[in-house]
Amino acid sequence: MTDIQKLTGGRPVAIVGAGLVGAGWAVVYARAGLQVRVFDANPDITARSVPLIESQLAGLHRHGLISEDPAAILARVTPVATLAEAVEGAGYVQESVLERVDVKRQLMLDLDGLLGPEAIVGSSTSGIPGSAFALGLSISPRVLIVHPVNPPYLVPVVELVPSPETAAETVVFAEALMNAVGQTVVHVRKEVEGFVLNRLQAVLLREAWALVQEGVASCEDIDKTVRDGLGWRWSFMGPFETIDLNAPGGVADYAVRLGGLYQRIAHEGRHEAAWDAGLIKEVESQRRGFLAQGDLESRRAWRDEKLMAFAAARRKGG
Amino acid sequence: MTDIQKLTGGRPVAIVGAGLVGAGWAVVYARAGLQVRVFDANPDITARSVPLIESQLAGLHRHGLISEDPAAILARVTPVATLAEAVEGAGYVQESVLERVDVKRQLMLDLDGLLGPEAIVGSSTSGIPGSAFALGLSISPRVLIVHPVNPPYLVPVVELVPSPETAAETVVFAEALMNAVGQTVVHVRKEVEGFVLNRLQAVLLREAWALVQEGVASCEDIDKTVRDGLGWRWSFMGPFETIDLNAPGGVADYAVRLGGLYQRIAHEGRHEAAWDAGLIKEVESQRRGFLAQGDLESRRAWRDEKLMAFAAARRKGG
Repeated sequence: MTDIQKLTGGRPVAIVGAGLVGAGWAVVYARAGLQVRVFDANPDITARSVPLIESQLAGLHRHGLISEDPAAILARVTPVATLAEAVEGAGYVQESVLERVDVKRQLMLDLDGLLGPEAIVGSSTSGIPGSAFALGLSISPRVLIVHPVNPPYLVPVVELVPSPETAAETVVFAEALMNAVGQTVVHVRKEVEGFVLNRLQAVLLREAWALVQEGVASCEDIDKTVRDGLGWRWSFMGPFETIDLNAPGGVADYAVRLGGLYQRIAHEGRHEAAWDAGLIKEVESQRRGFLAQGDLESRRAWRDEKLMAFAAARRKGG
Repeated sequence: MTDIQKLTGGRPVAIVGAGLVGAGWAVVYARAGLQVRVFDANPDITARSVPLIESQLAGLHRHGLISEDPAAILARVTPVATLAEAVEGAGYVQESVLERVDVKRQLMLDLDGLLGPEAIVGSSTSGIPGSAFALGLSISPRVLIVHPVNPPYLVPVVELVPSPETAAETVVFAEALMNAVGQTVVHVRKEVEGFVLNRLQAVLLREAWALVQEGVASCEDIDKTVRDGLGWRWSFMGPFETIDLNAPGGVADYAVRLGGLYQRIAHEGRHEAAWDAGLIKEVESQRRGFLAQGDLESRRAWRDEKLMAFAAARRKGG
């Protein structure tokens, strides 16, 4: 047995909810050598996930991101017709069902009746804390948030967020599993809304929308500022290492020099206005000037190619 | 004459203030084929700028980012002993003197007496608006902020910020010059503190510090969240294109779906505490756990190599 098979006791992974996120997870686990069962409450979505997974594997292969034959990886993925079939004997369940508390809660109730005593459940929710749907059940100690960035088979970061009832060993298992399948683990120690990734995205987006609203800069110029400026360093260092290297004495020196300025900017209170209809219309109009509605789909394909190339470069350059 | 020589009338560029930023600008202009005069009020800094420029050109050459012989580029850079020598007959002055209003104001007064009637002045200030030091002079219509990211010969974005007295044709010239030397122009239409780039950085940093303070995540985990997650897309798309592609119907659809969540996060008011001494000490201690004080310098060299590689990949991949 390989290390990852030892970790999972050779048991399969169940993917529950087989849309874009679930299919992406299936690629991650199958690529790592695990048997993967795929289930969606909508059988059409279950059926469609297989060609989707196949095309994602083809992309990875084209960019040299997998060495194994894509067909051999796909052969480890089995679509199934019921939740019971999906989770029977499974060592790990990755749920990516609809982002609604009632839907997630119902799934937990169902899993509570179906799962063996050792199976761990990871939820892909991008913002609903486990406290809202995973408490008070016999499986509660074995449930945690395992939040990926889309698509998880390309972008490695995963946020692990325990609920107050999640057992410490559940987090240890999830971290080991994520490391074994090649993801990067971030520990979110408290159940804050949006976790870490979407909180950071939220404050930057909020400022970006405010700058457009106040006529300081266009959407396109704000995108340029990030993609041809800020984003370069952040893409291989993150914000703390960036400022740590940006003052002679490191991060404390930086905080003394620039903390006041940054504090003032963050406190200016320019963010009271919501993303109201007028502003949304303005931003939409600017974006559609750059990219027609009908070109969104092909631009998404471009993005995915860029991410593949980014992943390939990262693998080479470390 | 090449296009860029036509643009500048074949006249030289004057670099005033020859520290890290000034030397970086000298590389940008000399690489583009322009004659560059370098001056710093401190003659030691003027002298040291030449080997600094030489080593930067060597790095660019090593990464295939310049095709011309580095010695030929360096031969276009001339250190001079006085401000008058630097700006005599110059078509463009890039000032990168100390980030203090009084120092910048004195330089503008000096330039006002020295410059010919057509010379344009770009200031590298990262946060002081032109209104604070460049008004009421005969040169005021020809002064604007031309704010680079460090180092400008690698990271292309430049913010152009006119003061209320800057002439429209000055912005037009600066944009044409930046495009001609290979930079990416962002127009900042109002003199807001921190312009666009540092405002976006400020709000993300402020949230990052708050997350550490509240024990939600460690510095290292926040860095991972960005460098292995958020930063990937931002490094080639920017925040607006990212969300435009992240909802089926584009950015307006995204705003309807997620605007409320992002608004709530941005408004939670978790940012009242300053970067106080205790928090700075905590972050410093976490960072020094990853990178000893004595290793900062070598890590900066690593960063610059990564940026060179990033620039080389960008050039190939578009």
